[in-house]
Amino acid sequence: MKKFINKTDDFIIDSLKGFAKAHDDIVALNLDPIFVTRKEINPNKVLLVSGGGSGHEPLHTGYIGKGMLDVACPGHVFTSPTPDQMIAAVEKCQPKSGILFIVKNYSGDVMNFEMASEMIEFENQTVLTNDDAAVINSSYTTGRRGVAGTLIVEKVVGSLAEEGGDLSSCKQLGDRVNHHCSSIGVALSSCTIPAAGKPTFDIGVDEIEFGVGIHGEPGRKREKIKMANHIVEDMVSAILKDFDEKSLDLKDPNGIILLVNGFSGTPLSELYLIYQAVTEKLKEKQIQISRSLVGNYTTALDMAGASITMCLLDDEIKKHWDSSVLTSNLRWGY
Amino acid sequence: MKKFINKTDDFIIDSLKGFAKAHDDIVALNLDPIFVTRKEINPNKVLLVSGGGSGHEPLHTGYIGKGMLDVACPGHVFTSPTPDQMIAAVEKCQPKSGILFIVKNYSGDVMNFEMASEMIEFENQTVLTNDDAAVINSSYTTGRRGVAGTLIVEKVVGSLAEEGGDLSSCKQLGDRVNHHCSSIGVALSSCTIPAAGKPTFDIGVDEIEFGVGIHGEPGRKREKIKMANHIVEDMVSAILKDFDEKSLDLKDPNGIILLVNGFSGTPLSELYLIYQAVTEKLKEKQIQISRSLVGNYTTALDMAGASITMCLLDDEIKKHWDSSVLTSNLRWGY
Repeated sequence: MKKFINKTDDFIIDSLKGFAKAHDDIVALNLDPIFVTRKEINPNKVLLVSGGGSGHEPLHTGYIGKGMLDVACPGHVFTSPTPDQMIAAVEKCQPKSGILFIVKNYSGDVMNFEMASEMIEFENQTVLTNDDAAVINSSYTTGRRGVAGTLIVEKVVGSLAEEGGDLSSCKQLGDRVNHHCSSIGVALSSCTIPAAGKPTFDIGVDEIEFGVGIHGEPGRKREKIKMANHIVEDMVSAILKDFDEKSLDLKDPNGIILLVNGFSGTPLSELYLIYQAVTEKLKEKQIQISRSLVGNYTTALDMAGASITMCLLDDEIKKHWDSSVLTSNLRWGY
Repeated sequence: MKKFINKTDDFIIDSLKGFAKAHDDIVALNLDPIFVTRKEINPNKVLLVSGGGSGHEPLHTGYIGKGMLDVACPGHVFTSPTPDQMIAAVEKCQPKSGILFIVKNYSGDVMNFEMASEMIEFENQTVLTNDDAAVINSSYTTGRRGVAGTLIVEKVVGSLAEEGGDLSSCKQLGDRVNHHCSSIGVALSSCTIPAAGKPTFDIGVDEIEFGVGIHGEPGRKREKIKMANHIVEDMVSAILKDFDEKSLDLKDPNGIILLVNGFSGTPLSELYLIYQAVTEKLKEKQIQISRSLVGNYTTALDMAGASITMCLLDDEIKKHWDSSVLTSNLRWGY
């Protein structure tokens, strides 16, 4: 294992300390238990709380700030945070308009956020994201996995909460955005969990994992690597099929958000190449790309690979996607 | 070689097409010859033109936009652009206040930008960046290499040019910022040039290359990997020694910009861990970190590794660093 690391046990805390210092104008880090909040907490708005295993940075800590999340509770690498983290965080924030938990659908996260939800005294609801079209049930999950679509949910609901939307409106919008998102990922390499010290899975020098999860979970198939245009064709087909099955029409004149997301080990130049390939496929299908995002937004430690997420827009989702956001890793309009 | 790629020869053009489409509100791509400009060109300001071999994205195309570059001329991977690219780009822009070329100190770039400089009819000057403290002379260079400090030069001079600074002021400021920057990089893996199809250099599973260049050029030494804090200690020492040799006092109350830059294959979590280690070293030395930037800003294809850049601030540099910038990969204040 070759990483910039001191002790395995200190990896997340060392990293979070650096994150919090680098962005001390935006966030504040609590150490015991671990959680990150906005530097200035507004107790009057709906409190948006996310979290999950570490290793997917900038998700979720990097999306704390004006117009997006209020709190993130990071667990150890690929391990759910525990209820005490969520409980201590909301106690600190003392929200007067309720809490919306945004949780990726992994069994550990679901269980621990549910426990926190029951134990806290504040009104709360949960949006469970499950945008990954690859597989139903997986190493860490019952049901579909929540992946990069989660940050779209966080951005859109974050905007509504910021402008004073109430808890039930935030919950409804979050569920709708999640339903409007579909994703699929491809791995070119494995990732290495620091505590394990060796790659999570083996993969041949000429192989890719189609439909991989963001923890290196198996996808739909292992296959030989091929031209990027052909890989992208398969990815786009999988997503379009998913929208068909959801009875959502991507040819809607509102168009889509197209997110080409790197898992961390793939350079930006390749992500843009993928983006180009997707635009050509969608042109054939007469699907309008209205908004775009290309970069490492939901990662899998050091994995080489990428995912594509499409989110069908409507007027409300578009308005809240476009509104100002000021976080360490997503910012516009400020 | 495992990459998202169609044909090796088309790699850069496929990628640039995607880049230009994803950011068509900010940039415009010219195909023959290849160059990228702002979507809206202002012929009255000093035109800031950069460029160099591809493979370092988002440098330079990702820094085109308000408050930063006007033009970037990308060459093939790790290969200088040719003078016809620079000439065609400035002909298109018809600048009335002269041109400032910002060129990283690599022999091919220096030669080709010099040729363009002589062949164009517009008044022009050049800032040559050479912030890499690692080595003097290297595979691609006579003299010190220009690396991540280049984007600080582009940001700061971009701000001055945007507010109407004249050519000689821009040139002077650019030279000063370059002089105020010092960088050093460490590689954990090699990178693979698409046309070569295999890693640029071999490196053992327990080795790092200390002082590596952004093309995988050799650095100061090959050594066994050690705790991140110890790697960072060596990196910080090398930079502090460089500032000493330049007779620049980092204890100035203005403080520094600290840029922790990923080469592309290293996750954000590790970059923040490095950032944390640097802050501890600088605290010991009573050096004030006034501004921070952490992420993949000057990359080396798929290389795992990172560099540290420090830029000594003064009032003028700080003002221009803080001013609004709106590019695809660096944005604040808008």
